[in-house]
Amino acid sequence: MQNYPSKLLEAAVNEFSRLPGIGRKTALRLVLNMLRRPTSDAERFANALVRLRTEVRYCNTCQNISESETCSICADQRRDRSLVMVVEDIRDVMAVENTSQYRGLYHVLGGILSPVDGIGPEQLNIQQLVSRLESGEVSEVIMALSTTMEGDTTVFYIFKKLQPFQVNVTTIARGVAIGGEIEYADEVTLGRSILNRTPYDSAFIR
Amino acid sequence: MQNYPSKLLEAAVNEFSRLPGIGRKTALRLVLNMLRRPTSDAERFANALVRLRTEVRYCNTCQNISESETCSICADQRRDRSLVMVVEDIRDVMAVENTSQYRGLYHVLGGILSPVDGIGPEQLNIQQLVSRLESGEVSEVIMALSTTMEGDTTVFYIFKKLQPFQVNVTTIARGVAIGGEIEYADEVTLGRSILNRTPYDSAFIR
Repeated sequence: MQNYPSKLLEAAVNEFSRLPGIGRKTALRLVLNMLRRPTSDAERFANALVRLRTEVRYCNTCQNISESETCSICADQRRDRSLVMVVEDIRDVMAVENTSQYRGLYHVLGGILSPVDGIGPEQLNIQQLVSRLESGEVSEVIMALSTTMEGDTTVFYIFKKLQPFQVNVTTIARGVAIGGEIEYADEVTLGRSILNRTPYDSAFIR
Repeated sequence: MQNYPSKLLEAAVNEFSRLPGIGRKTALRLVLNMLRRPTSDAERFANALVRLRTEVRYCNTCQNISESETCSICADQRRDRSLVMVVEDIRDVMAVENTSQYRGLYHVLGGILSPVDGIGPEQLNIQQLVSRLESGEVSEVIMALSTTMEGDTTVFYIFKKLQPFQVNVTTIARGVAIGGEIEYADEVTLGRSILNRTPYDSAFIR
């Protein structure tokens, strides 16, 4: 798949294949789809890309993507301002919001520490988190990062950074998924769920 | 995954999720990737999309994507002009060209008949194929479409359209793949490979 019949085609395939998880064959399929659609579709797509990159703003407080200086979550006075949940990116914010179980604020890191990919503490919004704690308003920081090597390293790094402050640092519970079969749970998760067993409380059963 | 924190973000997610095989979750992942990259990347991507859609040309003869009025394959005088292979799209041209086994010309239909998707004979480059045969230069039309219901219907439709002309209509061989285990071949393919058995010729063994 190397001899493209047109340089324009090849240029478009190159752009699509730079996206994560999209190889050159898939990119070509996407490009051929664009070619079959009206010119207005390509123009609208192009416009959305450029506006996204040039006009999108980030919340001054939590670094979430926002339409204004302060995002709608940070601006919502009904939310508990003493709770801050640290997440990797806005997809995690959306996932947690969908549960309707959390009424605190967020802090979006914009990634996790990954020296292999050249992502150090300076590339993440860690300093902004430290600054937020200086006001003394926050009493608990909930870490909701993935349990990979990088995620665990990031949690540990932030934990160290937060030592000077009077805040509780917690992590979300890890265990067997609700609806999940114990038989099929992986051994690490099952082991952790036994170590972190909680008192039986019928209020939480649903 | 419905409450996007920004309209710009949602617009970009909409565009990506209109592409085939890309759902809203994947689209959001691609959009977040674009956001992390430099603005110049988004501009280059946008530019490639618009130029692709507005400047790409199709070969007057075979309807392949081309840099000029006649594509490099049709313009190549060393190729056998009596052979025309009918394919669905340019990916098939690229796949056949990669085999280095075919020295004839192509005819790109731009799709296959699919009434469910509203693709009838007028949406495909079938009339252009008929016009090519009027010169009398072509002696054989090789059908290389997929063996789906739609592919078979398209082959039959074209076969009927080519009846008035003195051309042989052939299809590429279907059978057990080279390197494939007979044991694991599906029964339709294996059955067809027995019906279409060919005389043993050591020249073709490799």
